Amino acid sequence: METYKLSILIVSVLTGLVIHRVASVRYEPNWQSLDSRPLPGWYDESKIGIFLHWGVFSVPGLLSEWFWKQWVTEKDPAAVAFMKNNYRPDWTYQDFAEQFTAALYNPDDWAELFNASGARYVVLTSKHHEGFTNWPSKYSFSWNSMDVGPNRDLVGELAESIRKKTNIHFGLYHSLFEWYNPLYLEDKANNWTTKDFVAFKTLPELYEIVNRYKPEVVWSDGDWEAPDTYWNSTEFIAWLYNESPVKDTVVTNDRWGNGVMCHHGGYYTCSDRYNPGKLQPRKWENAMTIDKQSWGYRRNANLSDMLTMEELIATLVETVSCGGNILINVGPTPDGLIIPLFEERLRNLGKWLNINGEAIYSTVPWKYQNDTVTPNVWYTAKKSPNGLDVFAIVLKWPSPGQLYLKCPMTTEETKVMLLGYGEPIKWEKAKTGGINLQIPNIPFKSMPCDYAWVFKMENLL
Amino acid sequence: METYKLSILIVSVLTGLVIHRVASVRYEPNWQSLDSRPLPGWYDESKIGIFLHWGVFSVPGLLSEWFWKQWVTEKDPAAVAFMKNNYRPDWTYQDFAEQFTAALYNPDDWAELFNASGARYVVLTSKHHEGFTNWPSKYSFSWNSMDVGPNRDLVGELAESIRKKTNIHFGLYHSLFEWYNPLYLEDKANNWTTKDFVAFKTLPELYEIVNRYKPEVVWSDGDWEAPDTYWNSTEFIAWLYNESPVKDTVVTNDRWGNGVMCHHGGYYTCSDRYNPGKLQPRKWENAMTIDKQSWGYRRNANLSDMLTMEELIATLVETVSCGGNILINVGPTPDGLIIPLFEERLRNLGKWLNINGEAIYSTVPWKYQNDTVTPNVWYTAKKSPNGLDVFAIVLKWPSPGQLYLKCPMTTEETKVMLLGYGEPIKWEKAKTGGINLQIPNIPFKSMPCDYAWVFKMENLL
Amino acid sequence: METYKLSILIVSVLTGLVIHRVASVRYEPNWQSLDSRPLPGWYDESKIGIFLHWGVFSVPGLLSEWFWKQWVTEKDPAAVAFMKNNYRPDWTYQDFAEQFTAALYNPDDWAELFNASGARYVVLTSKHHEGFTNWPSKYSFSWNSMDVGPNRDLVGELAESIRKKTNIHFGLYHSLFEWYNPLYLEDKANNWTTKDFVAFKTLPELYEIVNRYKPEVVWSDGDWEAPDTYWNSTEFIAWLYNESPVKDTVVTNDRWGNGVMCHHGGYYTCSDRYNPGKLQPRKWENAMTIDKQSWGYRRNANLSDMLTMEELIATLVETVSCGGNILINVGPTPDGLIIPLFEERLRNLGKWLNINGEAIYSTVPWKYQNDTVTPNVWYTAKKSPNGLDVFAIVLKWPSPGQLYLKCPMTTEETKVMLLGYGEPIKWEKAKTGGINLQIPNIPFKSMPCDYAWVFKMENLL
Amino acid sequence: METYKLSILIVSVLTGLVIHRVASVRYEPNWQSLDSRPLPGWYDESKIGIFLHWGVFSVPGLLSEWFWKQWVTEKDPAAVAFMKNNYRPDWTYQDFAEQFTAALYNPDDWAELFNASGARYVVLTSKHHEGFTNWPSKYSFSWNSMDVGPNRDLVGELAESIRKKTNIHFGLYHSLFEWYNPLYLEDKANNWTTKDFVAFKTLPELYEIVNRYKPEVVWSDGDWEAPDTYWNSTEFIAWLYNESPVKDTVVTNDRWGNGVMCHHGGYYTCSDRYNPGKLQPRKWENAMTIDKQSWGYRRNANLSDMLTMEELIATLVETVSCGGNILINVGPTPDGLIIPLFEERLRNLGKWLNINGEAIYSTVPWKYQNDTVTPNVWYTAKKSPNGLDVFAIVLKWPSPGQLYLKCPMTTEETKVMLLGYGEPIKWEKAKTGGINLQIPNIPFKSMPCDYAWVFKMENLL
Repeated sequence: METYKLSILIVSVLTGLVIHRVASVRYEPNWQSLDSRPLPGWYDESKIGIFLHWGVFSVPGLLSEWFWKQWVTEKDPAAVAFMKNNYRPDWTYQDFAEQFTAALYNPDDWAELFNASGARYVVLTSKHHEGFTNWPSKYSFSWNSMDVGPNRDLVGELAESIRKKTNIHFGLYHSLFEWYNPLYLEDKANNWTTKDFVAFKTLPELYEIVNRYKPEVVWSDGDWEAPDTYWNSTEFIAWLYNESPVKDTVVTNDRWGNGVMCHHGGYYTCSDRYNPGKLQPRKWENAMTIDKQSWGYRRNANLSDMLTMEELIATLVETVSCGGNILINVGPTPDGLIIPLFEERLRNLGKWLNINGEAIYSTVPWKYQNDTVTPNVWYTAKKSPNGLDVFAIVLKWPSPGQLYLKCPMTTEETKVMLLGYGEPIKWEKAKTGGINLQIPNIPFKSMPCDYAWVFKMENLL
Repeated sequence: METYKLSILIVSVLTGLVIHRVASVRYEPNWQSLDSRPLPGWYDESKIGIFLHWGVFSVPGLLSEWFWKQWVTEKDPAAVAFMKNNYRPDWTYQDFAEQFTAALYNPDDWAELFNASGARYVVLTSKHHEGFTNWPSKYSFSWNSMDVGPNRDLVGELAESIRKKTNIHFGLYHSLFEWYNPLYLEDKANNWTTKDFVAFKTLPELYEIVNRYKPEVVWSDGDWEAPDTYWNSTEFIAWLYNESPVKDTVVTNDRWGNGVMCHHGGYYTCSDRYNPGKLQPRKWENAMTIDKQSWGYRRNANLSDMLTMEELIATLVETVSCGGNILINVGPTPDGLIIPLFEERLRNLGKWLNINGEAIYSTVPWKYQNDTVTPNVWYTAKKSPNGLDVFAIVLKWPSPGQLYLKCPMTTEETKVMLLGYGEPIKWEKAKTGGINLQIPNIPFKSMPCDYAWVFKMENLL
Repeated sequence: METYKLSILIVSVLTGLVIHRVASVRYEPNWQSLDSRPLPGWYDESKIGIFLHWGVFSVPGLLSEWFWKQWVTEKDPAAVAFMKNNYRPDWTYQDFAEQFTAALYNPDDWAELFNASGARYVVLTSKHHEGFTNWPSKYSFSWNSMDVGPNRDLVGELAESIRKKTNIHFGLYHSLFEWYNPLYLEDKANNWTTKDFVAFKTLPELYEIVNRYKPEVVWSDGDWEAPDTYWNSTEFIAWLYNESPVKDTVVTNDRWGNGVMCHHGGYYTCSDRYNPGKLQPRKWENAMTIDKQSWGYRRNANLSDMLTMEELIATLVETVSCGGNILINVGPTPDGLIIPLFEERLRNLGKWLNINGEAIYSTVPWKYQNDTVTPNVWYTAKKSPNGLDVFAIVLKWPSPGQLYLKCPMTTEETKVMLLGYGEPIKWEKAKTGGINLQIPNIPFKSMPCDYAWVFKMENLL
Repeated sequence: METYKLSILIVSVLTGLVIHRVASVRYEPNWQSLDSRPLPGWYDESKIGIFLHWGVFSVPGLLSEWFWKQWVTEKDPAAVAFMKNNYRPDWTYQDFAEQFTAALYNPDDWAELFNASGARYVVLTSKHHEGFTNWPSKYSFSWNSMDVGPNRDLVGELAESIRKKTNIHFGLYHSLFEWYNPLYLEDKANNWTTKDFVAFKTLPELYEIVNRYKPEVVWSDGDWEAPDTYWNSTEFIAWLYNESPVKDTVVTNDRWGNGVMCHHGGYYTCSDRYNPGKLQPRKWENAMTIDKQSWGYRRNANLSDMLTMEELIATLVETVSCGGNILINVGPTPDGLIIPLFEERLRNLGKWLNINGEAIYSTVPWKYQNDTVTPNVWYTAKKSPNGLDVFAIVLKWPSPGQLYLKCPMTTEETKVMLLGYGEPIKWEKAKTGGINLQIPNIPFKSMPCDYAWVFKMENLL
């Protein structure tokens, strides 16, 4: 089925009846059933994704991807002043779209960069809260990237490059609501007793992007104002799991209606920049940004707004130790470029992972997430023929001498290696329990990497 | 009812059930019933309307209001060359919208001008085939005059000025189809077995403009590719006649589906610039243009493209004689102005009507439309206390001496006046039947008007 | 000499020494000598020219060609409000230049139109007070029509079309001063004791346009703030008369320095729209506009701002009767078009001249300019084999019967014709002196023309 | 003298006579005299400057600041394709200027950043080869940053911020020639026998910027096509040294005419990115770029185009060791921002200098520039009460153990410190001559800095 038949959809929306194909495992359109689906394995193994916020908001490139709302509704003084100083009074947000040219957009270059960063999946905003679709949506005539601005299928071109050039999984962000769509505002004014917006816009587009681009992540957002029954979320997800072209590999998140986030769905996101610091009962994701102020491109972002490599690696390590994935956001420019500072962060991340990726990819949380005595030490673990290898990831390089780790229990066969460093690390069993690692005074030139260091421990108790 | 409930509409669309209010006369949603409705009297009495084609097509302002189609689909060499020479290759039609500023649009000025022209109704394109709505449609998010370009409600502002400043009736043109709307194109590809476009776009917008702006003319167009059953035309018109806020005064035309034009509906238009030259069985309208090449503004229109006053008055006279109304089109500029040449034509028309309006407004066709012997003489008639006054409208001023009219049969009391001229016109009964008017050699300075002259005959047989 | 050597010029400017070629008649750089030069005959014979004001001011197209000054210096509320409502606060006047595209400029079309109007010369603004040159001036880098905006030589293209397509004489308007040129402002602040602006800008450009485009009219303007000694006017004009490539045919006007206008130079202009109503001692020109408010294109010009044909013809007749030429201005649009209303005026003028041109072209003032008794009658005259033919041009068509003209003294052989009318006009010698013309009651259809009528009288006393 | 009197200048230009004030030391307008002037001390002490290339070329932001030439004259395929794909065919380079908005330009922010980088002077392009002046030049009407684009005095605002916020010296780059200025092209076609361009543009502007902004660096460029006699270079520099408002502190470079570079002038630049690697007889400067491909902002610069910190510090160290200053270029964006990657490089440089600046600022070359035996070791020196302190700057951190330096000759009192490290460095006199430094195995956390390390040696022989 190439395209979804909208007329049929409406019947579904109105009646609540969804007829399913017969299949070995079928999920029902309710949370209990949907929550029971095991997450496809590739997602947990990947650990690291790249998040891309790109849209008409990239054109003003100020404050954040919420610029429209900040300007028009919140009347943020900086936004108001910028518009007053640089545009005619009748300028509308939508007038920006003509300047969203993507003139230098080369998705092959993006694919190469994301691959070099060590990311294993990428999530692009197919449509943010502004409603502008980065693909030629049938349901967003004249407010999409083919009809105005780029004159290109931004989503489709990236999907193709990612799949042609890399093994990275391709995913799509999609906002359920649209701030200023009159159909949405009317449903809202009707207290969600009508659902015209869902029937004519949200759901048709969701089906369209899944059928057309076959994303393996459906990253839902913009859900919070309305209940999941308004969004028809469970019906859609049941379709996604049972019938969609990506039913076997797709993952989705938890932003599917007011009160749903952190309680139902695929993996949990719980909040922006969610980083709980302890093990979570369900698979989760820390969606965060290199530019601490914004998900969208900001022309005036300063260096002090940017995460340092140390902060980025620490966030990655904390996240993975606690069972999360990290989704690292960069905002492309309106002409389709990733600025050099973001490129530098991503390539440095890739270099770090070249040495230390063993402690990240395909790992599982250990019984301890961070050391109970020594700060700035986080654990991951991985099954090996010898049992469970445990990785102690040290965010501050210790002073020469001993590094005491309380949690690992040693055996006679315990072996410790510093990833990227040739020689075994000497150790002894600590009297207070745990292990004392003998930290060698490694000459500066021989340090295996920067930012964080991994002690791999085999044959622990 | 301020706004139409779309959810209910869809049920209607899908089920075909429409629940009507109880009313004294009710029209059924079939042509037999709808065609039986008498046309509200104001329309036939008005005779003259102003037609306005205004939209994003006014920005390129070349070739015609079909520029988009001519450029993209027909690949008209002039359109292609213009775009190639003046815009970047990725420029889209929708990118023009930002330049549709209406910066100098003053609807009070328009109202004054239309009133001075003698027109009694005005019809503005609420939406042409491009799909851009000149009002803030709920169903055309980001492709309407509030969201992009003017940042104004062009329809609403004109409606208000027309009603505040004049007694002119306000009407709206509306295109059923949209060339490039993907929903429409899909329904078309499905051979009209689906009707998503009608359900989510056409009908909601029709209800919206009628409820919101209360137009007394609904000038439908863009119907020809699909049958009326696709458009749900009869249901809509039944609502318009039975329940709409303008049910008692509204008129509509005949462009409501393939094969419908010239066969069903309100008044007939039959074709663009329809001017049949003989009496028609049903009320009809000659929608025509001062710029012979285009309905939309053309920057490069020459004088030779423009109707002369003689041509305009002749068309008016022929039309009214045969029972039609004339709808005279001018295309405003993208900044919201009527160019001086159009203004001159319209004001000259008004001056002519100041003298001769008696032979136009509220007239009825006579038993003869034009004289059977003498060319360039057209008749209208009007009830008077003395019976029927007949107006012979002469398009070429005769040479001094006799003007022979075959059709009028005189009586003893027959009296002939030249409108705008003080003295009675002498006449005698012609031997061959008819009347010989004694045309005085009126001094140049005393001629009552230009372009055409009216002999009013009272007390004919 | 293709281009003027600027270095040499400066020596001239500074020293006041100008070395002249030996020639049969040489003019000295003083007014007495220059004023003694006879005007080349073509100019007086031509009577009618077209004036074109085209420049960056055509882009805003509001108020007038003085928009920059009105906005920035005079702070005209309409200009200030327009800029505030339609442009960003930092928008500069020069920023408009990019939008001066001349995208539809076809000088062959202009040439055809001007020729059809009956004009015998055309004068284009090579540069107005804004300083933007409509040719690629060597002395106006990046502020000319080749470097910014049209990317074309607007002057050169028109010169070529005019000469290729018509026998019309080509002329150029040139503003000596530039409102906001800092060099000019500095000279002004120095009370004209410095003349850097003249040395580096005004004079080099004047020499450049004369040498390059060989205009037969040099229409100087913008002179009034400074004395002619500042402008080096007499030296330039002496060069123009003695050495320039157009020395034998060129005419210039009188706007060459404070106090010079109406006192020295070639022909006199005296003021804008100069129409003194009586014979002048020296050849003069009435430079006037069809749009009564502006020389430059105004987007919002109304019909009531436009001269009627009657007003235009009356102005022409009064001007020629008193020995003047008329220079009729129209302002092209920024995309290079003459609007249809202007086209209509010009083509109607041409039609009138087709009938009545005999009374205009190559005529001389008669001893009377207008009749001393009957109003609205103006005289011109022309040598013929029989003596002097006298033309009485009647602006209001008389009532049938007699038209009394006081001034013509008849002879036995006196013969009177109405131009465009086949039959001789009967007349008799009036008892009070003068002539009584027997005005026939010409049938409406047989009137030779509109607007004004010419009685040609041969063999007067 | 606030402004230079241009009329007087021309006399000077033409006669070659320049009347000087009487002063204690006067320089004659010839190279022998001018070359004899001692360089003001602040310049050599500063060592590090920031170079800023900002102009209309920043708007396309592709290839380099030579984009105009690359596009129009060289027809570089990338430039031609970019223009073809993104602009209308008639787009001119000057049309870009309207988009040079400087909308987010905050010179105080720049001043803070440059100060944090450790730079002691800054040089901004007042005008590059395109001829666009970043100040409101009197001689560049409508092609300057006040008249078009920013509507601001970019030069003046930076000068004020730099002086208000920092102790940094302010300098200006100025291009003598302008690629496409017709006056220049004509002089060139005349084989420099005329010098109109110099008289009306180059020299007036040079005097204007010096008088108005009082730059302490006049960084001349664009000289190479013409001899210094064409440019009147020696006369200008004599004025600069004898009479200008910055006569006591100003420095200038050597780009003052064909054949002059590297032979005459103030300090030598010799070539772009000049880094000779050995001691030079005269003070020199290495003007180089962080973006290896361009001096102007490039939107599509990649990380691989950017100098690493190691490369930047190595270039700095080599340059200073050999007696040069380094002028580090960054290209601001058209909206007036320094991109984060450049900011990161500059702030990292500042951090390095906080530790190691003692070995850079106010140093002099030592008798050896780099070690004759051990590679990647460069020397600087500085007078101290104890004689001469010598700094060995090590670009690769040595392996633990000995670092052999051949050049330093020790005494009994010789003392060695590692800058930023608390403890003295042990050493012994090497048997082969020179010194053996005992390199401690400094724990990773205790390393004083990155990129390069400085051993300060006191009391050498």
